[in-house]
Parts: sequence; C-alpha cells; structure tokens
Amino acid sequence: MRIVLDAMGSDNRPAPDVEGAVLAAKEYGDQVILVGDEARIKAELARQTIESAKIEIVHASDEVTMDDKPGTVVKARPQSSMHIGMRLVKEGQAESFVTMGNTGAALAIATLGTLRRIPGVKRPALTAIYPVQGRSTIFLDVGANADTKPEWMAQFALMGSLYASGALGYENPRVAILSNGEEEGKGSQLVHEADALIKTMGLHYIGNIEPKEIMIGKADVILMDGFVGNVFIKTFEASVSYLGEIIREELTRTLSRKIGAAIVRPALRAVRKRIDPSEIGGAPLLGVNGVVIIGHGRSDGIAVKNAINQARRAVSGNVIEILRDRFEQLAHHE
Amino acid sequence: MRIVLDAMGSDNRPAPDVEGAVLAAKEYGDQVILVGDEARIKAELARQTIESAKIEIVHASDEVTMDDKPGTVVKARPQSSMHIGMRLVKEGQAESFVTMGNTGAALAIATLGTLRRIPGVKRPALTAIYPVQGRSTIFLDVGANADTKPEWMAQFALMGSLYASGALGYENPRVAILSNGEEEGKGSQLVHEADALIKTMGLHYIGNIEPKEIMIGKADVILMDGFVGNVFIKTFEASVSYLGEIIREELTRTLSRKIGAAIVRPALRAVRKRIDPSEIGGAPLLGVNGVVIIGHGRSDGIAVKNAINQARRAVSGNVIEILRDRFEQLAHHE
Repeated sequence: MRIVLDAMGSDNRPAPDVEGAVLAAKEYGDQVILVGDEARIKAELARQTIESAKIEIVHASDEVTMDDKPGTVVKARPQSSMHIGMRLVKEGQAESFVTMGNTGAALAIATLGTLRRIPGVKRPALTAIYPVQGRSTIFLDVGANADTKPEWMAQFALMGSLYASGALGYENPRVAILSNGEEEGKGSQLVHEADALIKTMGLHYIGNIEPKEIMIGKADVILMDGFVGNVFIKTFEASVSYLGEIIREELTRTLSRKIGAAIVRPALRAVRKRIDPSEIGGAPLLGVNGVVIIGHGRSDGIAVKNAINQARRAVSGNVIEILRDRFEQLAHHE
Repeated sequence: MRIVLDAMGSDNRPAPDVEGAVLAAKEYGDQVILVGDEARIKAELARQTIESAKIEIVHASDEVTMDDKPGTVVKARPQSSMHIGMRLVKEGQAESFVTMGNTGAALAIATLGTLRRIPGVKRPALTAIYPVQGRSTIFLDVGANADTKPEWMAQFALMGSLYASGALGYENPRVAILSNGEEEGKGSQLVHEADALIKTMGLHYIGNIEPKEIMIGKADVILMDGFVGNVFIKTFEASVSYLGEIIREELTRTLSRKIGAAIVRPALRAVRKRIDPSEIGGAPLLGVNGVVIIGHGRSDGIAVKNAINQARRAVSGNVIEILRDRFEQLAHHE
C-alpha cells in the first residue's frame, strides 16, 4: 500500500510528520511518500533510524499555512504539498493522502482542485473520530457546511455508516442524529426532515441522540449539520481543557494537594489518554473521490503514525469503492 | 419583597424546595410564598427551624410532573402549583416566581397561560447561567425555540444584555454570538443575519465567539439559537460528567491511586464547586411579563435558596420594568 503524507502539515512541520511516516513505514511495512520541501525532509530523515522502511520523497516547492484561506488556496498554491500530494492519489500513484494541515484548505483543494467529489455526493463532510468508552465513534459533519440541507444530512448518514463498517470494522453501525432531546419529535426542522429521509435508507438508524447518550457510547455514527457539529466538538474539547485547567489549579494550591497529585499523576495521564483523539490520529474527509485523512496540527509523531493507520484501514476496507458503488446505485434508482 | 416558590418543583419535592425557601427567608428577610400541596408543605416545614422567617403557604391541588408535555400542560393543569404560583405574580401579589420544575411546562404556562410576553417581544428565551472563571455568564436561548429567526436572536441579545446589567450587575456587559469560528465572516446564515441586526443596537457587542473563548470568560452574554444552545449546554454538562466518571474510574484502579485520591479529594470537591451551576441556582425565562427563575430538578435546598436569590436580584434590578420600557421605545421607533 502506498500512502502519501503531507510533510508540511503539522504545526511543527516537518519533524512530527517525518517521524510519524518513519514509524508507520516500519510498523506496517507500507510505502510512505513524503511530499514537501525535500531539503527539510532529508534533514529530518537524517535524524531517524529508517532501517528497511519504505520512504520516498516527492518535492513540493510550496506549502499551505494555517492562515491560508480555503477560498484562495486552490488557485494560489498549486505547488503546495497538499496539492501535489492529492494529485498523486488522483493519478493512482498512491491510495491515500494524510495531512495534519489546514482543514479548510484540504477540503477546498480536495473538492475543487484535485480529487473532486464522488459522483452523486452533493457535499463532502468533515469528520472527527473520538474514542468514546473505548470505541471509535465518528462525528459528521463537523464543519464543512455551515448551512446544511436535509438531503446532505441523509448522505452524511450513508457515508458515515459505510465508513464505520468499511474502515472501523463495525458490523451494523448504529447511526444517530444529534438533537435537542432524545424523544422522537424533538428537533429543528432540519433534524425532522433529515430524520424522515434517513428512515427510508435501510441503515441501522436509531434516531435522536443527546450528548449524554453519545458519551455512554449509544451510537457509532453521530450526525449533525456542520455548524452544530463544529460547535459540538469544540465545546467538548474546550470543556475538557477548562476542567483540566481548574483541576491543575486546585491540585497545586497546597503542599498536601501537590503530594496527592504526584501520587495520582499516572491516573490523570490515563484519563487523558482515554479521551485523546490523537490515539486515533485523524479522520476522513468523506465524499471526495479518494481517501483523505486529516489530523490535528498539534500532532506528534505517534499521532501522525495513527493517522496513517486510519488511512490504511480506509484503503483496506475499500471505502471509496464501496461509496462509489452505492452512490452509483442510488443514481440509477432516481 | 415577596417571592413565590413552586414547592412541587424539584425531583425530590417538596423537601429541597421547602428547605430552600426557609433558608432564603431567614437569610434575606424576604417573604416566601410556598405554592403546592398544603399538607405536604406543612409536614416539611415541621422539620425546619423557621424562627421569624416569613413563610406563607398557598394551596395548589395539582402539580406539573417532569413527564408532562408543554403542549398539554396549559389546559390540563390549571390548578397546578406552577399555574397558581405564576398567577400570584401576574395579579401583583408577589414580584417573582421560582421553580425547580419542568422547564418546558414553565415556559408554556408563563407564555400561553399566565404572565404572557412583554409587549413587543417576539419569542421568550430560556437562559442558563454558569459560573465561568468565577463570573456569572448568561447563555440564551438554551432551548425555547428549536428554529430561530434573526430578529428573535437580536431580541435575545437585548434581553440578555439588560438582564446582565440589571440583575447580574455588569456595567457594560459583553455580548457575543456563538459561531463556528471566531473570525468575522464565520457563521451560518442565521448567525450572519443576526450579527448584522445586533450591530445596529448599541450594545457592547463583540461578535463571534468560540467555546474555548467562552471558557476563558471573554463575554458575559452568549447568544445562540435554541437548538445550538440546548446542544451546547448539554455537551458541556455531558463532557464534565464523562470526564468525572473516567477520573473516578482511574483514581480507584490501584491502592496507591486510592490513597492519592483521598489526599486530593478536597481539591476535586473545589473543582466541582467552581463549575457547579447550582451555586447560581437558577436562570430567568426572559421575555415573559414577570420574573420567572427556573432551576434544576436535581437541586438541593442550597440550590433552591440560590435560585431565590437570583429572583431577588432580578426584582431589585427592575429587570422587567427596564425590558418593558425598552421594548415600548423600540415599538415607537418602528
């Protein structure tokens, strides 16, 4: 399997990216193609023990930054590592593209500049995958579309369900829609209309879900419009950070608390690990015509390796072929 | 000041409600009118040391339950403690109504059955008040309206700002709108249209806000539509519970962790206290023609007392009169 990694993606690029590529190539035996500034990649590689790992470099003279606007990046940066990397996938020289870079830019370059949408897909969806009660749970859309139509939500349901079975290995993934109440009948007009459509699709659809039910692992695929989804994941992350900060403050307030804190430090590290999305590394951009996995800018080498593993699972599960086939069938039925 | 408390509100009614009423009457010297089942209230009062506290009982033969649907409760339960309690405020026999009961029912009974809206207010808003970095922060709408129009959001901005200055005592409250990005231009169509309206209103409006900025206390009034607001507060609460549960699990995994946990227990209690909304007790239903404060069903006596104090602050700050005047002025300008 050949995996393209954007070497210029993470906040501390290219060090964590290159390190993750080497870790993945060694652990999985796959070929990893690093795209980016050749000199800087080589300098980083010189710091690694590569052994027999299959690493290749494709030079890119430009890179997308976190400040680049999605609206301008497609035309403004055709020689960026994102552009060139996705083009390699489009041309069949690799099966997947992984980046820790600017999410909005990756969405724009994939959708408008290189891979384009799978025929029949109305809108791509950004996803996030979090460990919930030890199980990978996929959330979509977490920000591709601030204003969403019911038909797009229905397609997100299908794409999320197919990804959960193909790449995450769930036999009959439970799909739910985030609403302002778990009871049937609760919801905005968008939720009601999407709900009616999704009920006809033959998915394992369990209807409305509330945040507290998400946290007990009641569903595998959580649907939401891009505005709500973006607020949802940011609220979860901000709540965890806020609580973590208050805990830190209180644990260092007196000497005895500091002593207790030292004793429970391994427990607190274990807590962090159990909710840390970097244990999963990255999540797919769904609806584009190729495997694109996007990880967090703050990723370290391990997180990059995990994101590459997510790409491997999507490729092994034939997710793109399955999505193409299903959307083609749907087009014939219309 | 005369405050009506729904004695049949909390999950464990009437014990916490009556206890909170007695605590408040003793601490603040105000008259608290308990509305509900007279026999049960008297039995509870017999357990309390009332001293010279001004407590009165108004009998109500019926009560609203947590299972009652807002759509039916207005006609179905005219003799409930909520109905009778709000009627006392409407008739001028008290200045405020406080309940720990069914939020949707309170909204329906206030809006359609008793107090009605302040003239000019298009939709009432449910609010939540949380301590954020030690400061009371008001969130609205957290669930009254699942589908919201920009003009309603603009009215929420005005009502939230006037409440924050009148009842919370903020001189020039900072108003922000929850969006999928802090940058100007980010947002759904609803956010964009509401933003344009709010900019013309002469408030201290700081534009878009993200969850992580809310948590550092960047604004005093956080606007959102009722669907997003409901998801936001439930996500915050569910995240805190989820994290708390994982922390508990990890802290009890080994003997040494248990010993450390015992040492840091006061710190963890302090953490809980710093984010506990029951320290505030309740939040107003804004836009109805009278002070209505709604607290959590799980409230204990202290939380009920705090909710009564919130009512006192709203009454002392003349919030209803200020809102009436402002909406009347706005009607003249139209």
